[in-house]
Amino acid sequence: MSIITLTTDFGAGSHYAAAMKGVILSICPAATIVDVTHEVPPQDIRHAALLLDNAAEWFPPETIHVAVVDPGVGTDRAIVYARIGQQQFIAPDNGVLSRLAARRPPTKLIRLADPAYWLKQVSTTFHGRDIMAPVAAYLASGLDPDRLGPPLEQLTSLDWPEATQHPNRIDGAVIEIDSFGNLITNLTGEMLAGRPTDRRACVVCNIFETWGIYHAYAAQPNGTLVAVIGSAGRLELALVGDNAARRLGIGVGSPVTLAWE
Amino acid sequence: MSIITLTTDFGAGSHYAAAMKGVILSICPAATIVDVTHEVPPQDIRHAALLLDNAAEWFPPETIHVAVVDPGVGTDRAIVYARIGQQQFIAPDNGVLSRLAARRPPTKLIRLADPAYWLKQVSTTFHGRDIMAPVAAYLASGLDPDRLGPPLEQLTSLDWPEATQHPNRIDGAVIEIDSFGNLITNLTGEMLAGRPTDRRACVVCNIFETWGIYHAYAAQPNGTLVAVIGSAGRLELALVGDNAARRLGIGVGSPVTLAWE
Amino acid sequence: MSIITLTTDFGAGSHYAAAMKGVILSICPAATIVDVTHEVPPQDIRHAALLLDNAAEWFPPETIHVAVVDPGVGTDRAIVYARIGQQQFIAPDNGVLSRLAARRPPTKLIRLADPAYWLKQVSTTFHGRDIMAPVAAYLASGLDPDRLGPPLEQLTSLDWPEATQHPNRIDGAVIEIDSFGNLITNLTGEMLAGRPTDRRACVVCNIFETWGIYHAYAAQPNGTLVAVIGSAGRLELALVGDNAARRLGIGVGSPVTLAWE
Repeated sequence: MSIITLTTDFGAGSHYAAAMKGVILSICPAATIVDVTHEVPPQDIRHAALLLDNAAEWFPPETIHVAVVDPGVGTDRAIVYARIGQQQFIAPDNGVLSRLAARRPPTKLIRLADPAYWLKQVSTTFHGRDIMAPVAAYLASGLDPDRLGPPLEQLTSLDWPEATQHPNRIDGAVIEIDSFGNLITNLTGEMLAGRPTDRRACVVCNIFETWGIYHAYAAQPNGTLVAVIGSAGRLELALVGDNAARRLGIGVGSPVTLAWE
Repeated sequence: MSIITLTTDFGAGSHYAAAMKGVILSICPAATIVDVTHEVPPQDIRHAALLLDNAAEWFPPETIHVAVVDPGVGTDRAIVYARIGQQQFIAPDNGVLSRLAARRPPTKLIRLADPAYWLKQVSTTFHGRDIMAPVAAYLASGLDPDRLGPPLEQLTSLDWPEATQHPNRIDGAVIEIDSFGNLITNLTGEMLAGRPTDRRACVVCNIFETWGIYHAYAAQPNGTLVAVIGSAGRLELALVGDNAARRLGIGVGSPVTLAWE
Repeated sequence: MSIITLTTDFGAGSHYAAAMKGVILSICPAATIVDVTHEVPPQDIRHAALLLDNAAEWFPPETIHVAVVDPGVGTDRAIVYARIGQQQFIAPDNGVLSRLAARRPPTKLIRLADPAYWLKQVSTTFHGRDIMAPVAAYLASGLDPDRLGPPLEQLTSLDWPEATQHPNRIDGAVIEIDSFGNLITNLTGEMLAGRPTDRRACVVCNIFETWGIYHAYAAQPNGTLVAVIGSAGRLELALVGDNAARRLGIGVGSPVTLAWE
């Protein structure tokens, strides 16, 4: 049994994801298809890169993750096969895999080049359906990825700013707003090792601040700004029972500092 | 073949549901996963309770329904396994199962306590992924639910107001707005047995009224307020070809009276 | 293995699609269910007809496509089984199949009449769950469609305006806005055969115009209006890196002319 996941910016109302699923099931009827999301904001490669990085590791080894956020479709941007850890990826080479690759270097990179594994007619505007879906389906059916094309030396990379550690503080930023409006930062739980997490720790984001790092959102009353280590191991700020991003007007890129007295 | 359904407030744009699916498929590759919805309004336990009550009964016996609307994650609220009718449920014990349980008492209730069936590392903010998903997958693989932990005496209950019957009228309320904007009430078809449903029956909701109970929305022209017995056996009000909730400004909790002349 | 697809206007937040899936899996546990979309605008039959026409052809032969956009539920409108090309369809006979049928006449048309293949209790407001889902599941289990009811002579048809070709121009219209805001027209790639596609070709939509037909959206800088032949073989207009429909205020029905100097 092979699993193929889909991460796209197609929107739930379009027929595009369904067309990809039809192509996949036409080639590999036994594939299990899982939607990661089709709600990546249109053409937002960084957003998709973070989503993939959050989701992919939870799938069984050998899962094939297809990411179609592809503003350059029809230009000479490459489409790649990448093996990262025990997971496989098919995506345009536009940086959408660079968050994953920053954490763990790919052990195989191939540029999709052999049209034997594509649809016979390839449009210039929908390579998700015409190239990526059939390639994923052939892989799910057991195709050796080396047959897909020549090796690629390096993935296109986006810049992923890291938090910087100082003696008495860590400076970072909000890198993601989740669906609850929680502010997810690039400060990780590892960076806090050995540091106090009680009320001596102060987290500042824009003009807002909160003391202490808690184990649960509900550790504080509704309406309180709390800091927790979230489910991806990153420091996040939440407004208990509310949407912090919307209520406080904070977006991706806002500075976050964790300081100790 | 085992079916696992998911009902959450994660939103279609997040990676959270995908992470749960990855965990499930890692443990039980043959599971059939069905999304009930991920669009429960954030932390709206009552909304999720109604959804589950509407959806669960249509699934095959032994289906495992996982509901993750969990504002108390990381606190000492319990996570439970419940057997209600022929369906199985995994959910935080916060009332999300209390609508189902109000109609039919659970025949088994267990408090999840044995970490042998959880992920090895359990976060404090995402028990859907770390506890509920693996438990559901082990159940789908044949695990005896008695292994999950000790019996629980009683589910946490929310108050579900019932319509009150009087000699010439029934007083109730709107309990749900469906995706078409139809106003679904707590008056049931059974309450109407033996009563006239022609134009002697008058339904009043806020300042709006309509006469007669019809068999089809389209029994009246577009723009008409009609009362029908909906697909869950409850009286509902619809604005033909339009969205009644939005157009008339009616929400959950609005009073509804059905009266006979 | 049988595939059943669902195209509805239920919205992702409702339990209606889940109820249909529960019914299907109760009858045919081995069915593979694929969501085309549940985000058809409420009761928008034409929108659903276009979606189905775009999606269905990509699925394996014998796939069963169920379309539930059914404002007339409970009235005497028929529910039909149609075989079009190698695909099968179950839908209310309200025009939702007429776009597909305009391109390729159905080779079998049956009016659903035998309640042996429906749920035992049929509501008057949700035939998707009570009639269409079980019929699809029985078909997926191998039922001969001739058992479903008597032949139907003709599908209800909606008017699908065609582009008109003149010596030096083609007059058409926007027939669909996709999820990126691209304006998809009823001018097809075939109509352009042998005509220049370089800057001698001018496309005008409302007060906006662009020259040349390109192979990729990204062939022009961000913010440029470009014409391409899209993935369904139709001329479309896109605003590079942006949402043309929203930014230019253009909707379905807007006139489009392609002219050659």
